[in-house]
Amino acid sequence: MVKQDIVIIRYGHREVRDFRVTSHCALVSRALGASKIIICGTPDETVEKTIKGVNARWGGKFEVKFSEGWLSTVKKLKKKGYKIAHLTMYGIPIQRIEKELEKITKLAIIIGSQKVERAVYENADYNISVASQPHSEIAALAIVLDRIQQGKELEKEQKGAGLKVVPQSKGKKVIDLK
Amino acid sequence: MVKQDIVIIRYGHREVRDFRVTSHCALVSRALGASKIIICGTPDETVEKTIKGVNARWGGKFEVKFSEGWLSTVKKLKKKGYKIAHLTMYGIPIQRIEKELEKITKLAIIIGSQKVERAVYENADYNISVASQPHSEIAALAIVLDRIQQGKELEKEQKGAGLKVVPQSKGKKVIDLK
Repeated sequence: MVKQDIVIIRYGHREVRDFRVTSHCALVSRALGASKIIICGTPDETVEKTIKGVNARWGGKFEVKFSEGWLSTVKKLKKKGYKIAHLTMYGIPIQRIEKELEKITKLAIIIGSQKVERAVYENADYNISVASQPHSEIAALAIVLDRIQQGKELEKEQKGAGLKVVPQSKGKKVIDLK
Repeated sequence: MVKQDIVIIRYGHREVRDFRVTSHCALVSRALGASKIIICGTPDETVEKTIKGVNARWGGKFEVKFSEGWLSTVKKLKKKGYKIAHLTMYGIPIQRIEKELEKITKLAIIIGSQKVERAVYENADYNISVASQPHSEIAALAIVLDRIQQGKELEKEQKGAGLKVVPQSKGKKVIDLK
């Protein structure tokens, strides 16, 4: 497996209304190997606070950034050599394209909400679907991250963690590392 | 691959507050091969309505049911021969246990929210984690469904669909089948 940098772009975040769903997106991005989420739309400190708290306890340096415009974000990332993948139920099935995506060392993944403007499809290098059915950008993101990293993200340690789970068949065991 | 029936149990749904997250759970369950979601907590017609609308357009017979108590639901399912898997960040990593789960023909998967009482861990045949990090029950469910069905769920047709996506590298193409 090549070493990848994966950045998530959250398209069209609306404060308050989208807090929980965007928080899920950010937590999934962090837990499943991405380095950063860039939230386009209303800046929302609650999401940033949630992630900072999780980093402090569970480790890692996952970042939350805000951007007013998705297009300027995409253009900047393209200049830095990132390929752009957009998750949409209308795209090419992930199972047909995952081998190609595995090889990309700098990948930005756009996740939208219900309405995504046409320019997103056009500016993406890849439009990718998970199941060609309406469901959830959180689920689609999780499956794409799991597949393009071939499951290696599940074994990754979060550096500098204060707490660490010791897997149990029943109940909870957490070690305090600090 | 054995033919599996997979039922999802949503633990602790609170009306209004949880509508969007539970809707995501239901849509993911439907799109990724489960036959039913049983929502434990406040009955919420909006989730049911959402799914009925999706079934009408995109096909399939995915069901939404409500239950006042998760424990009676679990007991009933156990009597019918279902094994119970509970998704929790404290459980056994999915990658260690997926081969065993693939063989189970009747599986019920419990997904909780932040606080799940101890009895859930104790009544589950399997407590399963995805990444041993805090993130999202929607993401954990998606990855577990994808892995235990070995990706076959992504190829599944929804019977009786009125609409069908034709995957595109740019843009949207939908065929009207009715």
